[in-house]
Amino acid sequence: MNENSAPLVGLVMGSDSDWPVMEAAAAALSEFGIPFETDVVSAHRMPAEMIAYGQNAAGRGLRVIIAGAGGAAHLPGMLASVTTLPVVGVPVPLKTLDGMDSLLSIVQMPAGVPVATVSIGGARNAGLLAVRMLASGTDELAASLAQKLAAFARALNSQASAKGAALRAKAGADYPLAVMPEQL
Amino acid sequence: MNENSAPLVGLVMGSDSDWPVMEAAAAALSEFGIPFETDVVSAHRMPAEMIAYGQNAAGRGLRVIIAGAGGAAHLPGMLASVTTLPVVGVPVPLKTLDGMDSLLSIVQMPAGVPVATVSIGGARNAGLLAVRMLASGTDELAASLAQKLAAFARALNSQASAKGAALRAKAGADYPLAVMPEQL
Amino acid sequence: MNENSAPLVGLVMGSDSDWPVMEAAAAALSEFGIPFETDVVSAHRMPAEMIAYGQNAAGRGLRVIIAGAGGAAHLPGMLASVTTLPVVGVPVPLKTLDGMDSLLSIVQMPAGVPVATVSIGGARNAGLLAVRMLASGTDELAASLAQKLAAFARALNSQASAKGAALRAKAGADYPLAVMPEQL
Amino acid sequence: MNENSAPLVGLVMGSDSDWPVMEAAAAALSEFGIPFETDVVSAHRMPAEMIAYGQNAAGRGLRVIIAGAGGAAHLPGMLASVTTLPVVGVPVPLKTLDGMDSLLSIVQMPAGVPVATVSIGGARNAGLLAVRMLASGTDELAASLAQKLAAFARALNSQASAKGAALRAKAGADYPLAVMPEQL
Amino acid sequence: MNENSAPLVGLVMGSDSDWPVMEAAAAALSEFGIPFETDVVSAHRMPAEMIAYGQNAAGRGLRVIIAGAGGAAHLPGMLASVTTLPVVGVPVPLKTLDGMDSLLSIVQMPAGVPVATVSIGGARNAGLLAVRMLASGTDELAASLAQKLAAFARALNSQASAKGAALRAKAGADYPLAVMPEQL
Amino acid sequence: MNENSAPLVGLVMGSDSDWPVMEAAAAALSEFGIPFETDVVSAHRMPAEMIAYGQNAAGRGLRVIIAGAGGAAHLPGMLASVTTLPVVGVPVPLKTLDGMDSLLSIVQMPAGVPVATVSIGGARNAGLLAVRMLASGTDELAASLAQKLAAFARALNSQASAKGAALRAKAGADYPLAVMPEQL
Amino acid sequence: MNENSAPLVGLVMGSDSDWPVMEAAAAALSEFGIPFETDVVSAHRMPAEMIAYGQNAAGRGLRVIIAGAGGAAHLPGMLASVTTLPVVGVPVPLKTLDGMDSLLSIVQMPAGVPVATVSIGGARNAGLLAVRMLASGTDELAASLAQKLAAFARALNSQASAKGAALRAKAGADYPLAVMPEQL
Amino acid sequence: MNENSAPLVGLVMGSDSDWPVMEAAAAALSEFGIPFETDVVSAHRMPAEMIAYGQNAAGRGLRVIIAGAGGAAHLPGMLASVTTLPVVGVPVPLKTLDGMDSLLSIVQMPAGVPVATVSIGGARNAGLLAVRMLASGTDELAASLAQKLAAFARALNSQASAKGAALRAKAGADYPLAVMPEQL
Repeated sequence: MNENSAPLVGLVMGSDSDWPVMEAAAAALSEFGIPFETDVVSAHRMPAEMIAYGQNAAGRGLRVIIAGAGGAAHLPGMLASVTTLPVVGVPVPLKTLDGMDSLLSIVQMPAGVPVATVSIGGARNAGLLAVRMLASGTDELAASLAQKLAAFARALNSQASAKGAALRAKAGADYPLAVMPEQL
Repeated sequence: MNENSAPLVGLVMGSDSDWPVMEAAAAALSEFGIPFETDVVSAHRMPAEMIAYGQNAAGRGLRVIIAGAGGAAHLPGMLASVTTLPVVGVPVPLKTLDGMDSLLSIVQMPAGVPVATVSIGGARNAGLLAVRMLASGTDELAASLAQKLAAFARALNSQASAKGAALRAKAGADYPLAVMPEQL
Repeated sequence: MNENSAPLVGLVMGSDSDWPVMEAAAAALSEFGIPFETDVVSAHRMPAEMIAYGQNAAGRGLRVIIAGAGGAAHLPGMLASVTTLPVVGVPVPLKTLDGMDSLLSIVQMPAGVPVATVSIGGARNAGLLAVRMLASGTDELAASLAQKLAAFARALNSQASAKGAALRAKAGADYPLAVMPEQL
Repeated sequence: MNENSAPLVGLVMGSDSDWPVMEAAAAALSEFGIPFETDVVSAHRMPAEMIAYGQNAAGRGLRVIIAGAGGAAHLPGMLASVTTLPVVGVPVPLKTLDGMDSLLSIVQMPAGVPVATVSIGGARNAGLLAVRMLASGTDELAASLAQKLAAFARALNSQASAKGAALRAKAGADYPLAVMPEQL
Repeated sequence: MNENSAPLVGLVMGSDSDWPVMEAAAAALSEFGIPFETDVVSAHRMPAEMIAYGQNAAGRGLRVIIAGAGGAAHLPGMLASVTTLPVVGVPVPLKTLDGMDSLLSIVQMPAGVPVATVSIGGARNAGLLAVRMLASGTDELAASLAQKLAAFARALNSQASAKGAALRAKAGADYPLAVMPEQL
Repeated sequence: MNENSAPLVGLVMGSDSDWPVMEAAAAALSEFGIPFETDVVSAHRMPAEMIAYGQNAAGRGLRVIIAGAGGAAHLPGMLASVTTLPVVGVPVPLKTLDGMDSLLSIVQMPAGVPVATVSIGGARNAGLLAVRMLASGTDELAASLAQKLAAFARALNSQASAKGAALRAKAGADYPLAVMPEQL
Repeated sequence: MNENSAPLVGLVMGSDSDWPVMEAAAAALSEFGIPFETDVVSAHRMPAEMIAYGQNAAGRGLRVIIAGAGGAAHLPGMLASVTTLPVVGVPVPLKTLDGMDSLLSIVQMPAGVPVATVSIGGARNAGLLAVRMLASGTDELAASLAQKLAAFARALNSQASAKGAALRAKAGADYPLAVMPEQL
Repeated sequence: MNENSAPLVGLVMGSDSDWPVMEAAAAALSEFGIPFETDVVSAHRMPAEMIAYGQNAAGRGLRVIIAGAGGAAHLPGMLASVTTLPVVGVPVPLKTLDGMDSLLSIVQMPAGVPVATVSIGGARNAGLLAVRMLASGTDELAASLAQKLAAFARALNSQASAKGAALRAKAGADYPLAVMPEQL
């Protein structure tokens, strides 16, 4: 592995104030010689860039994303919804609640979109988990599974859309004021 | 107000299984003669459509969005990040934790992107809150504030992007393996 | 909007010790040029004034109330029960429990009387939410809905009174010592 | 004590749905031959009547108030703020959170306005506590303390009002848009 | 009331380290001119004295007991079980858990033995609640209820003893090794 | 070990309603051939008998006490305060809070008086833990330590009493109304 | 990938009663054509086998371990400590506490030994996360990182051992009774 | 008891950073003249040594183990699974969550493998509990029960293994991809 090679891990966080917690992931990746990139990608303040980051991650050569966030910590889960890469979530503790809000916002993802959550403030373990992940796959698996994962994401989308259509029909019948002008 | 007029409120939820809880918002809106639309808009399973829904909401004439979600309930907060309309969040209780995870994931939003959160399962109050909101503004205020809110959102984005640039510079200096090929 | 115009937002709190948290709402309103007033209105130490404040708010021209309180934080909910304006509640964290008591006391309102709750200590978002609300209504909606909301509040009252009458009758029959001399 | 005598205890609750829990207080009072009255007095749906109930309680001969409520359970604390009688609060568990929200909303009262809180759903103990209270005073104490308690409540009010005036002055100086047209 | 008269309130705590929290009760009682006594009465380190304190309290002229304790805070409840005086419990916060353990240990008493619980660290309110209690009774009530309360406590004891006898019989039949040599 | 020998373990609980949970301890003890006794010993409804039970336990030949209780679960800790035998506490879950109140009330004992707490509802483990305890001592240790433990308990008592005396002196000096007629 | 090939994922759980929750992981793996094995491997009832399972997992060809457990859920963390494979932990909810104990026992791992935790009962996501992991590595990475991870685990061990030696020396100096006969 | 005799209590902890909390156990043991040893034995960083420590403890003459750990605190439970000695668990509070995670990870052990849990940070009580345990047994009991406990542990293992075999069979039938090459 060449230190000048393209980054394999994207280490992102919702705010630059998360860096003192998240830096431990950078250190862990460095110890294992894993090239990575790091950035502020806020789900709430930069939603379009956040979506783009997730959508382009695999194509740009990233193989794992580590995302830290606090409070209503949506970044890890939202990234997981727009990429098929494994996403590691780090609950960052804020001024109140000791990170319990961050933990629940990250770990309690619905079926279909997993986030690999580590402990509150556990950025070092996030880095180490990324290393274990990078060591677990093979070329053959990666090739075989990439397309299946993309198809799976499309199916999730279709099923949710179909449920929306059914709900629109039902609600439209029950509530005269429920005006649904066009499909989403 | 004509019952055939375009919807003023968008009533969306992460899954059709949220409807038994969320229907009470539809009933409340109907009692007040507020035309509304309803749909499944999953933050995790339909991220692109969710973003589009939020971005187009104001342009399509919606004036309030009510969003219900459970668990790692990202929908209300994510919608609030891509619209300047007020967003009312309803924490839907799932099988475990009695909705405490949903509540924290919705209410603990970072500064800049508010969600008007109601009680766990409190969809009826979400509808009533939307009515109170609709009664609180005026044409003059709406005209005056719309542009300011859009500018505010752009400033949030710029500030976050600038913090990202600073972080990339700092991390790049500290960690030789932190390769940041281009700006986000 | 003229800076000398009457206040549009009432920014109140249960104690002057809440000001360091609540000031961020004042700053946010100021950034958007929204005239506001601010005061200590304690639900527990000034109940009559608190009720009067809520009852007179709309008549005095306020269009949104922001209320911060800690512990058994009754102020936002009590104000919401005596006005039809939208009320934004800010849970203020006190010495113990990190604001979890404040949050639950504010957000878990019963059906009929909503409070738009923001995050623990989230006064800046309360200000921003008020701005979004002010931008969401129209003259026509305000005129149309004001009377409906007042009628709704009267109906809530009547229904609760009727339930009380029924309970008095039932309890009077079951418990000879349950002496109910006159209706409330 | 004559069973036809005026009620000594007011047993009130926020909703008639609380009766299955609160009935145990009625039973306990009956076992001890304490005449009582019972009613629905909703802090949120009947705020004016609730205030009146508390303000008139002592004058009507009540000596203890038992108040049960669930969720954002404001009834016990609000009654305690408008009467100098001892108020016993019963946290009623609702569909979610097992009454933890009710407990915190009732017990975490600010200094100056106490509520004697019993266990979640502990209405029987509320009745027994009222009996213990009724047995603890004397004519002389009652006469001596009644005036002091009224003066204390007035002082609480004055202090809070003074803090409000100070805050208005300070905020008015700091924020040009903070328009405070008149004292509360 | 003469300042040299015998104490009316017993203000006790599990440890002298609770005094900085509990002193506010002493101050409140003093403001109302209520003579009181104060002592360390540890449920766990001085169980016999604690029982004696409770049993002798009424006979010694006390009319209310205020008890503060932290952690597994047994003092208020244990005192309530050996006196018919009203007992006010103050949850004292210790180094961890912010007093939540203290609160639950004090407030969640079983039916039959109430403790009037105030907020975490709410000693001032405990004093004020004692004042309200002292103002709520009359000579006639005190005389009438004292004997009933004593009889009630004896009945609680008898019922519990009878349940024990039944359990011993049942367990003895089911488990040959359950040797119950004599009644308690 | 003879099955007719005197009981080695006392298996007690606060209410006969705890038996369905606590029976698993009886079964575990029986599997290991440990003679035991079982009874209802309520800390709150039978305080004198509870104290006597603990004080006499060692003298009657018991070597371990298992105590189950729910809510404000004082029984295990109070027994531990009046015996030098090891006490195993079983948090029994009641209708609300899933046993979290029971757990905290049992486990959070102050320094000096330990309770060996097992899981919520973990009566089987309580029985097994008693077996492990019975297997851990020796005649020599028992003889050597019994006196030391009794002396330790007396010292705890003395220290607490001394702190009480100091507090009485200090409070008496600070508060003229703090009348402390005699030592406890 | 051939369906008869050796298992790539080990799907284990602490008890066969976890299967109804964990089966969803099996279904997810099957949908992606990933061969897997499944077994009961109890950290507490089969510790030696559990250690052996983890130690042999990589050698037997497994590339990811999914482990579900409830209560004091030690299985995922213990497996992670004896393998360098990525371990996905599934908190299984038991009769009380809604899985909050399971979640904290699994996710709050110390630095050095990560567990990729999914939501309470989130076995389907565990399966999907394993698929994402399998798709994230490459032959080259696997070869490069395997040795580094093994060295890292040995270093963790050495550091902990060294701390133990230092502690033994310090405690031996401070406490004459601290007899430490030999190194671990 | 000779102070030079072999240690009777093993006092271990997951990290040397736990020593400031755990030292209180050493002090308590010293006060009672109990020889003990102390060491860092990390469940996660030294799993093999941890298992060996537990397995050899009884043979080396230890009669009680005290184990402290924080976060996902597996050490006490894992030791309890590889020894038949009684194990006392001390939840050590870490930077976040105030030790609630440590408490639940230690106390919520499954049936069959008890840990005698003391309060958060309650190391002094752990020492005192060990003393009580050492005083509770006799030579005869120790001899009689040692073999039974060993047999019990073997039975637990067998039952769990049998359940694994059954699960393998069932899963193998239901999922063609569930390849279970050999018994554990």
